[in-house]
Amino acid sequence: MAAFSFNKIVIFGVGLIGGSLARALRERAGATGEVVGVGRSIKSVERALELGLIDSAVSLEDDRAFELALRDADFVLVAAPVAQTEPLLRRIAPFLDARTILTDVGSTKNDVVAAARAALGDRVGQFVPGHPIAGRESSGPDAAIPDLYVDRNVVLCPLPENSPEVVERVADMWLATGASVHRMTAEQHDSVLASVSHLPHVLSFALVEMILQAPDAALKFSFAAGGFRDFTRIAASSPEMWRDVCIANRAALLTEIDAYTNVLARFRQAIETSDGAALEAAFERSRTARTEWQQGGAIKAADESAQ
Amino acid sequence: MAAFSFNKIVIFGVGLIGGSLARALRERAGATGEVVGVGRSIKSVERALELGLIDSAVSLEDDRAFELALRDADFVLVAAPVAQTEPLLRRIAPFLDARTILTDVGSTKNDVVAAARAALGDRVGQFVPGHPIAGRESSGPDAAIPDLYVDRNVVLCPLPENSPEVVERVADMWLATGASVHRMTAEQHDSVLASVSHLPHVLSFALVEMILQAPDAALKFSFAAGGFRDFTRIAASSPEMWRDVCIANRAALLTEIDAYTNVLARFRQAIETSDGAALEAAFERSRTARTEWQQGGAIKAADESAQ
Repeated sequence: MAAFSFNKIVIFGVGLIGGSLARALRERAGATGEVVGVGRSIKSVERALELGLIDSAVSLEDDRAFELALRDADFVLVAAPVAQTEPLLRRIAPFLDARTILTDVGSTKNDVVAAARAALGDRVGQFVPGHPIAGRESSGPDAAIPDLYVDRNVVLCPLPENSPEVVERVADMWLATGASVHRMTAEQHDSVLASVSHLPHVLSFALVEMILQAPDAALKFSFAAGGFRDFTRIAASSPEMWRDVCIANRAALLTEIDAYTNVLARFRQAIETSDGAALEAAFERSRTARTEWQQGGAIKAADESAQ
Repeated sequence: MAAFSFNKIVIFGVGLIGGSLARALRERAGATGEVVGVGRSIKSVERALELGLIDSAVSLEDDRAFELALRDADFVLVAAPVAQTEPLLRRIAPFLDARTILTDVGSTKNDVVAAARAALGDRVGQFVPGHPIAGRESSGPDAAIPDLYVDRNVVLCPLPENSPEVVERVADMWLATGASVHRMTAEQHDSVLASVSHLPHVLSFALVEMILQAPDAALKFSFAAGGFRDFTRIAASSPEMWRDVCIANRAALLTEIDAYTNVLARFRQAIETSDGAALEAAFERSRTARTEWQQGGAIKAADESAQ
């Protein structure tokens, strides 16, 4: 485990993601600094305080407390919905210490970079865009766990304005949670995530939507079984969050939808012409790749348990 | 549990599906009749005999043993891959007792009905097409379990030529395994399954195929996480089986692919025009339907444990 220490970290949004980081730093990494939780109202951070995730709770509505919270902070973590990034950074900017490092956890990065440039101007070098690829089905401060980031990937998308030291500090913070840290451009990140995360969500929502439109939808749902269950698990995800992700990552997602539509049209053609050889070859390629991917995950999990 | 007894049942293909039926009848329903397992070679049924799933093992290659096995059978269950249905029924036909009831477990039904008509001619009334909607990730006789069918749906697609008594006997057999039994036409069955099972498999295979075609496929796979895992679990299914299902259920599957492509095009349009309201409304409908479906499953499971 990488050594990591801090004096004060300010977390905007102390739910599953922000709360788990707080727990990971204190319980896994043994860091002793002050953790300040900030919420849109004091009510929204009270539960995190009750649970001991944070040392103090501050409301965005309380200007004086908010200013004090930011004073001398080593880190500011923005763990609020992506659409709030720009207004939050604008609120933070006037009180931002020159030594404070900011980072975020948003699922899309091009839009976050644009928001950070707009809100922070020539101080954007203090902001390191980040995305921990981790989650659980439950949300909120009660869902926060210290091990959420163990063996998960965290992507950092450093800006040309970031100094190596600033990026290193953010990387060290995530390494201390048990995650592995990768660097890529915001464009690469958004393209990769569009492919392996955003597109599958859209496809899963679309299957349920299609069945709902059928006149015999109830009959169809009543005979859905395990394959449907797994395929549509992500269709129970937050509509607001996925609306925002789809729009924030529009360009990359449209590219992926078009590539997918082409593959599906090719499969359709093979089915229509009863081209069993083409279907079997494609299904075999998929099975092999999926199985290898899963085994890679299994090997990783085995390493973890040996630690 | 429905009372059910038999003197002799002959099972073609004693793997997960056929073997689990044998175990369910004996271990759950307490039926005491003889279970004969038939395989393409004696080797393929030896393991089922070792495991005690069957009382005797017969090879299709041994004409005399095969003829004896069919004599006085109450039931013949065809639990072999769908494409083998017609040749198997042709092999059975010359030795078929007038009192023997045949049924199958195929994932598609229109093609099975056509195969049965072609192979059995005017004795097709002895054949009741069926499909237990159950499975496990593992296969073969070692995977057979007595509880595979508990609280699962079994669909029967009776033919006009079936007498009510014949259909009732097959229904009683499945009820004795703990399943619930539903009747619909082969057309209805194939349409429903195309929608909630066959299409999701095609869509899942297509996502992996699309990523494989990307120049940065390895990078993409390395950042795939939980959503991808669930969505593509069924992309590790048997390529041969799904090739056959796609072709056997071609007409219904093409209809579903076209309906799906339309929904996806509508989603694409909403993303391209940043129509957040349309996206959120559709995602919300999907989440609600998916959540209700899941809860229905939970209620069913609760009923089971109360029995």
